[in-house]
Amino acid sequence: MDQTASVKNLEQWIEELDQFNQTPGNGTTRPVFTAEDMAARSYVHKLMESVGLEVKEDNAGNLFGVLPGEDPSLEPVWTGSHIDTVPNGGKYDGIAGVFAGIEALRMIKESGAPHKRSLSANVYSGEEMSRFGVCCIGSRAIAGRLHLEDLKSHSDPSGTSLYQALKDVGYDPDSFDEEFPCKTPVYASLELHIEQNDVLEKSNYPVGAVTGICAPTNMVVEVFGVQSHAGGTSMTARRDAYMAAAEISLLLERLALESDSMYITGTVGEMTLEPNAANVIPGHATFSVDIRSVTIEDKDALLEKFYSGIKEIEERRKVKVTTDMMNHDKAVICDEHIVELVRKGSADLGIPTMDIVSGPYHDSLMLGDITKVGITKVGMLFVPSKDGISHNKAEWTSIEDIAKGTDILANTLLKLANEA
Amino acid sequence: MDQTASVKNLEQWIEELDQFNQTPGNGTTRPVFTAEDMAARSYVHKLMESVGLEVKEDNAGNLFGVLPGEDPSLEPVWTGSHIDTVPNGGKYDGIAGVFAGIEALRMIKESGAPHKRSLSANVYSGEEMSRFGVCCIGSRAIAGRLHLEDLKSHSDPSGTSLYQALKDVGYDPDSFDEEFPCKTPVYASLELHIEQNDVLEKSNYPVGAVTGICAPTNMVVEVFGVQSHAGGTSMTARRDAYMAAAEISLLLERLALESDSMYITGTVGEMTLEPNAANVIPGHATFSVDIRSVTIEDKDALLEKFYSGIKEIEERRKVKVTTDMMNHDKAVICDEHIVELVRKGSADLGIPTMDIVSGPYHDSLMLGDITKVGITKVGMLFVPSKDGISHNKAEWTSIEDIAKGTDILANTLLKLANEA
Repeated sequence: MDQTASVKNLEQWIEELDQFNQTPGNGTTRPVFTAEDMAARSYVHKLMESVGLEVKEDNAGNLFGVLPGEDPSLEPVWTGSHIDTVPNGGKYDGIAGVFAGIEALRMIKESGAPHKRSLSANVYSGEEMSRFGVCCIGSRAIAGRLHLEDLKSHSDPSGTSLYQALKDVGYDPDSFDEEFPCKTPVYASLELHIEQNDVLEKSNYPVGAVTGICAPTNMVVEVFGVQSHAGGTSMTARRDAYMAAAEISLLLERLALESDSMYITGTVGEMTLEPNAANVIPGHATFSVDIRSVTIEDKDALLEKFYSGIKEIEERRKVKVTTDMMNHDKAVICDEHIVELVRKGSADLGIPTMDIVSGPYHDSLMLGDITKVGITKVGMLFVPSKDGISHNKAEWTSIEDIAKGTDILANTLLKLANEA
Repeated sequence: MDQTASVKNLEQWIEELDQFNQTPGNGTTRPVFTAEDMAARSYVHKLMESVGLEVKEDNAGNLFGVLPGEDPSLEPVWTGSHIDTVPNGGKYDGIAGVFAGIEALRMIKESGAPHKRSLSANVYSGEEMSRFGVCCIGSRAIAGRLHLEDLKSHSDPSGTSLYQALKDVGYDPDSFDEEFPCKTPVYASLELHIEQNDVLEKSNYPVGAVTGICAPTNMVVEVFGVQSHAGGTSMTARRDAYMAAAEISLLLERLALESDSMYITGTVGEMTLEPNAANVIPGHATFSVDIRSVTIEDKDALLEKFYSGIKEIEERRKVKVTTDMMNHDKAVICDEHIVELVRKGSADLGIPTMDIVSGPYHDSLMLGDITKVGITKVGMLFVPSKDGISHNKAEWTSIEDIAKGTDILANTLLKLANEA
């Protein structure tokens, strides 16, 4: 292919999209299905048309910018990411992958390179969980993991349900269970994303070939002790729910640190004590547990030790502990064939890459759930995040690195689109 | 004296006061200076009048139900406690002592027994620290340990200052520094309270003669780490504010358990994480530390080890920890003369008592700060708490035990009121 990615295009599109922002001057805030998100979609829709793509949309709000291939009977090849953001987030997370996809298809179209399969540069709705408490709304729908009843049960902090929000911006959520999972099989998907960690930066690589995407296991743990007076109850007579919670938290940390898997993480991000008064021994503690790894076996091994440690703490401290598993997602191992195409394509272009594992989840985690969506080959490309910072207004990625990633993306998409 | 305490009165008053409650069905919640607290004061005010006491009130909201003595020039004898509660607390903590005091004065008045000194059954405002982060508001003011500037600097979680709260319910906080410390010397104070521990119950005594009151040291500890993505940040790269807080909490627990003092306690009752989201490593943790003992030397020894442990955790975890000491109070040793009067009075009435140390603080801790308030004799009487549980809706004390304590209280107050 005679085309290379235009730094000018990528830079201009990223800057122009950033005008659709609820918090100018304090990071980018563009929650899914808000006025800002809808205006940003309209911008991307027009951009797709202006580079010659045929635009389609589904009732989860996913946008598809299609470049038809020579043989319409063959399964298409997808790329794309998301344009919604966390509150006061950055302007690259998701967005870099959306514009890299559109730029890649523009390059392929303008180069006139023949391709049998159709290509599609997509925008998936609401990858961030911050508005409705559910992540990857669009890609989850495609994968058949979001149903009409879920739309009604998930609401934002103001009480607007996901169902109502979809209706308010003009989609037809009532058709959800007929339309999803996506009925048309897809041949392969390759998403570009910023790394959100500092591995590439520290190793001085402009691009990473993602070999796996960690999946979260989320639990709510509750400890029931005995609420009592901080002065009146001697140390040996206590059944302190918080001290048990603190011990369980440190157990999680220790197990993650001691695990053989270098990609495993264990996090307690939320903690609520009752009654939460300085002079009262907490009778009840509720906290979140987030465990991630690149294989579900790693997580299962950690969980086994975690549960047995909890049992020991429960007995010793005479408290009752319950664990409520919200999700226990399987990680995605990226398709070895795509990873190899990315490595080779990079070498051909003279761009150094390294293999890398994704700690955060992405839309590709949903698309890679092959048992449901019928995408047999999933891959990702990472570009570096400065200081590893993301979900923060300080998020920054060099446009030159995004352009290098886009060159690899375009060439790999073209190869995939010509596979039989 | 020919009168004995009326179980019926005590039971009825305790039950009637409990209607002033923000959380019916889920324990008693009556924070100081709320509508419920003001309604409860009004109830007690009317009750004092109905048993023939002269009611006075100061600008800290303290209520005094006075039974005048034969010689108004002599310093009065005080009894009393508090009616505010912790969130979802019990209906005996403080309240038992308020009604025991009123019942004791009713008995003395109805018996017609002569007494030289005036007697006063008091309600001290806001003994619990849960609303404004400062304990013993009323008795602290009396002792000259709460000033106009403090009223402005202490606020509740909604941002209402103690100054504003006093104004809102009709007091004149601007006169605080003129009115307090209490200008009239007091001869002696004897407070009845529930034990809030299970020493009396286990030893099978209906009443305890308190020999000392442990004093709290309260701190707010903050940990500053680095907020980052739960999936993106490897275990070894984290600077997790919460995990450091959990380790500091367990250090406090261990030091209190290992201390030579059997009365020392260490409690973390409040914990706030930021941003408090399941998929974000907390960048900031704020928590309360409550340390109590019967001597300040015990606490100082524990604090020295606590600070050096925090320093080690801070360095190892690469976080910043600050400790803000709110109060570091001295314990009170009860007046030996009053303790002896209580012991003898109990023996005369055939009620077995044992000497006991108070882990919790009480208003008497403030009244016993003799250098400031001029009460030279402070004592307390304890009645048993079922299973030692307090600050909990399961808090329970037998009315018969409160009546026994009230009999001893009334007889001891009468003796004190006739001392020269």
